[in-house]
Amino acid sequence: MTWRSHPLPAEQQIELDGTRRERRGYPEAVYCEGKTDAQLVEIARQVVRAGTPTLFTRIRPEQVDVLTDALPDAVYEPTGRIAAWPGEAPAAVGGLVAVLAAGSSDAAVAVEAHFTARHLGRPSELVIDVGVAGLHRVLGKLDLLRAARAIVVAAGMDGALPSVVAGLVGAPVIAVPTSVGYGAAFGGLAPLLSMLNACTPGVAVVNIDNGYGAGHLAAQIAAP
Amino acid sequence: MTWRSHPLPAEQQIELDGTRRERRGYPEAVYCEGKTDAQLVEIARQVVRAGTPTLFTRIRPEQVDVLTDALPDAVYEPTGRIAAWPGEAPAAVGGLVAVLAAGSSDAAVAVEAHFTARHLGRPSELVIDVGVAGLHRVLGKLDLLRAARAIVVAAGMDGALPSVVAGLVGAPVIAVPTSVGYGAAFGGLAPLLSMLNACTPGVAVVNIDNGYGAGHLAAQIAAP
Amino acid sequence: MTWRSHPLPAEQQIELDGTRRERRGYPEAVYCEGKTDAQLVEIARQVVRAGTPTLFTRIRPEQVDVLTDALPDAVYEPTGRIAAWPGEAPAAVGGLVAVLAAGSSDAAVAVEAHFTARHLGRPSELVIDVGVAGLHRVLGKLDLLRAARAIVVAAGMDGALPSVVAGLVGAPVIAVPTSVGYGAAFGGLAPLLSMLNACTPGVAVVNIDNGYGAGHLAAQIAAP
Amino acid sequence: MTWRSHPLPAEQQIELDGTRRERRGYPEAVYCEGKTDAQLVEIARQVVRAGTPTLFTRIRPEQVDVLTDALPDAVYEPTGRIAAWPGEAPAAVGGLVAVLAAGSSDAAVAVEAHFTARHLGRPSELVIDVGVAGLHRVLGKLDLLRAARAIVVAAGMDGALPSVVAGLVGAPVIAVPTSVGYGAAFGGLAPLLSMLNACTPGVAVVNIDNGYGAGHLAAQIAAP
Amino acid sequence: MTWRSHPLPAEQQIELDGTRRERRGYPEAVYCEGKTDAQLVEIARQVVRAGTPTLFTRIRPEQVDVLTDALPDAVYEPTGRIAAWPGEAPAAVGGLVAVLAAGSSDAAVAVEAHFTARHLGRPSELVIDVGVAGLHRVLGKLDLLRAARAIVVAAGMDGALPSVVAGLVGAPVIAVPTSVGYGAAFGGLAPLLSMLNACTPGVAVVNIDNGYGAGHLAAQIAAP
Amino acid sequence: MTWRSHPLPAEQQIELDGTRRERRGYPEAVYCEGKTDAQLVEIARQVVRAGTPTLFTRIRPEQVDVLTDALPDAVYEPTGRIAAWPGEAPAAVGGLVAVLAAGSSDAAVAVEAHFTARHLGRPSELVIDVGVAGLHRVLGKLDLLRAARAIVVAAGMDGALPSVVAGLVGAPVIAVPTSVGYGAAFGGLAPLLSMLNACTPGVAVVNIDNGYGAGHLAAQIAAP
Amino acid sequence: MTWRSHPLPAEQQIELDGTRRERRGYPEAVYCEGKTDAQLVEIARQVVRAGTPTLFTRIRPEQVDVLTDALPDAVYEPTGRIAAWPGEAPAAVGGLVAVLAAGSSDAAVAVEAHFTARHLGRPSELVIDVGVAGLHRVLGKLDLLRAARAIVVAAGMDGALPSVVAGLVGAPVIAVPTSVGYGAAFGGLAPLLSMLNACTPGVAVVNIDNGYGAGHLAAQIAAP
Amino acid sequence: MTWRSHPLPAEQQIELDGTRRERRGYPEAVYCEGKTDAQLVEIARQVVRAGTPTLFTRIRPEQVDVLTDALPDAVYEPTGRIAAWPGEAPAAVGGLVAVLAAGSSDAAVAVEAHFTARHLGRPSELVIDVGVAGLHRVLGKLDLLRAARAIVVAAGMDGALPSVVAGLVGAPVIAVPTSVGYGAAFGGLAPLLSMLNACTPGVAVVNIDNGYGAGHLAAQIAAP
Repeated sequence: MTWRSHPLPAEQQIELDGTRRERRGYPEAVYCEGKTDAQLVEIARQVVRAGTPTLFTRIRPEQVDVLTDALPDAVYEPTGRIAAWPGEAPAAVGGLVAVLAAGSSDAAVAVEAHFTARHLGRPSELVIDVGVAGLHRVLGKLDLLRAARAIVVAAGMDGALPSVVAGLVGAPVIAVPTSVGYGAAFGGLAPLLSMLNACTPGVAVVNIDNGYGAGHLAAQIAAP
Repeated sequence: MTWRSHPLPAEQQIELDGTRRERRGYPEAVYCEGKTDAQLVEIARQVVRAGTPTLFTRIRPEQVDVLTDALPDAVYEPTGRIAAWPGEAPAAVGGLVAVLAAGSSDAAVAVEAHFTARHLGRPSELVIDVGVAGLHRVLGKLDLLRAARAIVVAAGMDGALPSVVAGLVGAPVIAVPTSVGYGAAFGGLAPLLSMLNACTPGVAVVNIDNGYGAGHLAAQIAAP
Repeated sequence: MTWRSHPLPAEQQIELDGTRRERRGYPEAVYCEGKTDAQLVEIARQVVRAGTPTLFTRIRPEQVDVLTDALPDAVYEPTGRIAAWPGEAPAAVGGLVAVLAAGSSDAAVAVEAHFTARHLGRPSELVIDVGVAGLHRVLGKLDLLRAARAIVVAAGMDGALPSVVAGLVGAPVIAVPTSVGYGAAFGGLAPLLSMLNACTPGVAVVNIDNGYGAGHLAAQIAAP
Repeated sequence: MTWRSHPLPAEQQIELDGTRRERRGYPEAVYCEGKTDAQLVEIARQVVRAGTPTLFTRIRPEQVDVLTDALPDAVYEPTGRIAAWPGEAPAAVGGLVAVLAAGSSDAAVAVEAHFTARHLGRPSELVIDVGVAGLHRVLGKLDLLRAARAIVVAAGMDGALPSVVAGLVGAPVIAVPTSVGYGAAFGGLAPLLSMLNACTPGVAVVNIDNGYGAGHLAAQIAAP
Repeated sequence: MTWRSHPLPAEQQIELDGTRRERRGYPEAVYCEGKTDAQLVEIARQVVRAGTPTLFTRIRPEQVDVLTDALPDAVYEPTGRIAAWPGEAPAAVGGLVAVLAAGSSDAAVAVEAHFTARHLGRPSELVIDVGVAGLHRVLGKLDLLRAARAIVVAAGMDGALPSVVAGLVGAPVIAVPTSVGYGAAFGGLAPLLSMLNACTPGVAVVNIDNGYGAGHLAAQIAAP
Repeated sequence: MTWRSHPLPAEQQIELDGTRRERRGYPEAVYCEGKTDAQLVEIARQVVRAGTPTLFTRIRPEQVDVLTDALPDAVYEPTGRIAAWPGEAPAAVGGLVAVLAAGSSDAAVAVEAHFTARHLGRPSELVIDVGVAGLHRVLGKLDLLRAARAIVVAAGMDGALPSVVAGLVGAPVIAVPTSVGYGAAFGGLAPLLSMLNACTPGVAVVNIDNGYGAGHLAAQIAAP
Repeated sequence: MTWRSHPLPAEQQIELDGTRRERRGYPEAVYCEGKTDAQLVEIARQVVRAGTPTLFTRIRPEQVDVLTDALPDAVYEPTGRIAAWPGEAPAAVGGLVAVLAAGSSDAAVAVEAHFTARHLGRPSELVIDVGVAGLHRVLGKLDLLRAARAIVVAAGMDGALPSVVAGLVGAPVIAVPTSVGYGAAFGGLAPLLSMLNACTPGVAVVNIDNGYGAGHLAAQIAAP
Repeated sequence: MTWRSHPLPAEQQIELDGTRRERRGYPEAVYCEGKTDAQLVEIARQVVRAGTPTLFTRIRPEQVDVLTDALPDAVYEPTGRIAAWPGEAPAAVGGLVAVLAAGSSDAAVAVEAHFTARHLGRPSELVIDVGVAGLHRVLGKLDLLRAARAIVVAAGMDGALPSVVAGLVGAPVIAVPTSVGYGAAFGGLAPLLSMLNACTPGVAVVNIDNGYGAGHLAAQIAAP
């Protein structure tokens, strides 16, 4: 004999914001972390029914199959754990977005930002492993940086790269602290505080590991 | 050969507060997280023997079977990881309790609050996915909110929903920060602080993810 | 008799970054908090000699006279504790900047942002006391918000306004947490975390009370 | 010669929420800390013009004269640094509010809560210096506690009193941590965390030293 | 082909403090968490060789077999994850130690303290589940409390029990915060701060979950 | 014209715990920080009327005259900001208390502990400036340390002294972190955490700068 | 059918800083934690191609085989989770490096520092289990300590050892807090703060568990 | 009539570590913050009597006259709030120390380090205002940096300069976070964490604003 069980049906747990695209002009996004399979399936159902372009972020490995079954015609970027429906990015319009990762361990976050900017309709360039320990690497990218309308910089540990980049260009810098590091990095707190205190004006900060948010902002800034 | 082992017997580890119901008028509750199987079985034994209505909160999946065997005539809500013995909620009396979850990831906490309010004897309504990113969703629930005697609002991330809700109604709002989020959400610290600093008076806060406590308070506030 | 004293001369303490304007296209800025009078006088001397347009931020009341003597043809905004040299803002070009303060206690920070945006050459509109406790106030500004190319939102306490504003428009929102509040506001930590966890994409955050940085970013985003 | 100065006029800094009373049924409140004299005078002007009953909280000693001149027919409680306009509290209706202070150093916060509850129209009783170090003191107030519809408990240091009180009664307890203490009290963080983790259900928490918020909630809970 | 590997031999990693017993009069103790199997075996070897009475604390389940093989004539308490060699506790001398756990989830820590006090040679009594939510439970133990020369109180969540107990007796109270709880308990930070700010004098605090340290102190205090 | 003002009378703010001495056997204590003059006068009045021996701690310089007028026959220790009524300490009985201050800046806290232990009836010895930077200083006090029944150690900055002392003796060590230091001392947090994590068993911790509490505990431990 | 997947190729994620050796004179280092297998293989490829001596730190057990295949002629130290390519350490030149671990649980960090110093070309001695609980152990190593040009001290818990060591010698001490401990050690925060507040001058601190960084600094300090 | 007062005599509060110079080879230092005038006078008396060269750090303005009277033949540096007795620095021997301040607000800390290094007998060069916002400034000092045997870098806000400097040279970098900044700088916590997480090896950190400690370490590292 088992307990009588009353799970809340998934359709009572989801009420997608169907009018965001009208109000804001950008696709809907679904944060997958912590969602149950049943919730994801219900979301996919509502997305397809409404025909709303949608990004799926922070997809856990065990959720990939669930989403694949529900949205077969989507595109998935495993490095950035992000997907888009429909799979084709819109034609690129507006200013250039440049996305930098300080180290190769920051690549996942930078790729999430790059993917987002592309799927929100901007041209985007991605550069990885240009941390301040070897300044010549970022100085070697000055042409790209000066061509950009918005720059995303993902960095963990000391979070020093955004200050350096912002000192070199006139475009706004969106800094993304990453949880790369250990000990006194405190899960990204160190680069977060560092970036909030950038000694160079022109640096705005998003949440730790929030590549999606950074890419979204860059796309808004570089909008035509 | 093994070490000689002296485990403390479970019956020496449990002394249920048998008079709470008389003093306070509400069922006993058992927080299951971190309890051993032997402790749970002993608790169930004491509950049945004394006939005390009891809620079981934070039931870990691997504890479900243990409790099922010990209390076959209970009801279990897997979304909220909560159970009640006896399984039948009392007849609903008193004012209406409204329970809101800002996002679908907050559903577990909201369901825990809703289940608790119902099993403490109040009428309760549950609404999920009405965060401030799309204000029209919460504004569409004004009739329900204004009919309620107590409102529970579960929200993670920025924890902004309770301030907005409290600005719209005269009833007290019980805000429950959730651990939904990542990075600078710091396990619910962000919405916790946000709610404690609500710019609207009429917001009281309970512990992160404490849906049980929120539902309990709402039931007390809406008592006949 | 006194100790022999070796104070470091001010001119050895200051090396203004004379080429920022060329590299970045925006005026130099001097953070006055914690600077000695001798340092400020030396800075003013270098500024005038080089003819570099310069903002002076966080001017303490007792520093006003020092700066006045050194830079008589500057303009000073006491609400925002900010000054500009030369005093005349450049002609406004580029997109509109909208600056919002959630409460009247946040006015100082908002004025600092507004003043900065104007002196970096953007048209700017300032609106004060539109917090979420009375949603009708911010909803009444929708026309202004939708006309803006960049929006600055200053808020203390729960920091909920940026999430709400970002949900209503397509332009990027620069959120400035303020130290307005007490207790668990922890000097602005509460709205800082709240804003970093905004449930609406399109919110970037600068340091607590950093109106200057927010205005600078808005001017960059709204550049022609 | 002085700098040309552009202070923002006070009337552009204040937009009182004139409809709160209609929406919520309770007086407006003005948080005075950090407001300039000019802002307070403008607020007083708008309050009188609209005839809106208003509380003024956290009045700094040097602000008393400013408010006195602007609102001569108000009542002022110096222990709680709070004032009300008009000065007469409404007739008391609804359930009883009981306000407890653990120590005499917590009296200021408790008085603020008591004053607020009275001016929101509830009967209220105030008891001071009943901390858990001498349990007989709080046990001696059981009759009052059991007669109350809502109980406010202000406590600093270990913040233990709300747990004890909630274990004795059926009414909801609004716990107010105070900044009384030193060292590891961290400005009220210790009792704040203690209260959020109350081992007794039925405890809701407001911000550190927020006597106003606690009294407001108690009045809402005890509304007729 | 594999890399050439140079592991540091265990005997170069351990230098037991063989003279502690002479200096201090109490057994040696080994904190097992984080030690490798090789380190534990080496320690056991040194312990047996020197004939030093030793406690082993924080034994992880997977370490039990390793220690069993190395020290067959030891006694192991699984509830408290603690062992003693030799297995027989010395005859009890000195004053009585009373060990209280606020809830049954705190039993592990309380048992560790009780076991330690016994193996350091004191008479000890253990009482579990006497939290402040039901004051009558702790008040029912007054005789025991007043007979004790030293009292250990283990509590998680609000950590309120030590203040209450210390207010009732003349003996010193050793408070042990436990990591029992969730959310704003922050792994035991809440009861730790609460206990450090006990409003009753006579409460000293040890590290979170440090039942061993509490029992050790109690044994020292109650020494003949 | 002034506002009508309703200050709460002091006698309604104070309810001394008159039975503590009977329950616990030690004098009452009054924490003066944050108390108003009127509250102090009322407390002094109740103390004299009941004839209760009382300590006054954390006396602010501007409060000295108030207390002097109210309790002329008290004794005051300005280094420790502490006073006792009546002024004569009781005859010393029980074990020896040794009080150590790591640096001369910690003297205030150590003196508060020493004064307290003496006025609770214990013999007490005070030693100042024996930090671990010069180990020979503390090693030179071994005879005193080994003669003591309880040892109080006050230290700021790294808080390393209690670990070292506890390793040398069999008596329990009461560690008092002090707020001496700057920067990453975070007002005493650094030595507080250091002491809670003492690698030597036998160290119990009280609140930052809580010399009174440490002296009280030492007196309890060394009671005859 | 599966989603179309666009993983970023590893060669676009890595841009080794090939000129560090020229600029700084020390080998390159790769922090393996969080790197994907593909990234590690690409790094190994670039290392071999450029012939750059390289250390690999924080190698997770599951990464050992990947690196083994890519760099068969490397040497691996499992206690310190560190490897070097090429496997032979250079001839030792310069001053002596002494590496101390307070407890045997700190051995992993100390070994990482020792290995690093050796592979950067310094003579190095390693001593383990010399914590301050038994001062005679560290006092027994005075000859080694006084012979060293740079001393690394790894300690968790109270982090008291570096203060004590620095008080005994003239050489600089590099303190490495370790995450050994529990509860209020907060993952190494306690010893980190303790070390930053060392009451003895001559102590510099690196990140928690950063044995590599400590060994690197020691090698720089002891350079010929 | 006044209370009978028992202040502890200053000579019982001070026991200078007279043998430090023999043990460690460097002058004694006295941290003046928080010391009473009587303590300072007693210290000066002991210093002169023993003839021990001594530094006085963190001298508060109101303490200057006290020290001047006690030690007329000392030298005082008001920018760095530091003094030395005797006033003449020893002849400079050993390697070069380079001291950098990121901004002019960091000058006080850098001057304290520079003064310390000189009075411990090293040649030292001081450079101010070379922050990363204008990279050309620090790149213009490469010759100095490469000539140094030890480099001190003082920086507040983002604390990014040490990482950049360490990437350019082979000498060890002593990073000093300063409390320059506001908001999320949290009194120097931001640069402290940033520096502890420097992505370049070769950076060691001292306490916030600890210019003395940094200069001391640099002198030790650059010792002949």
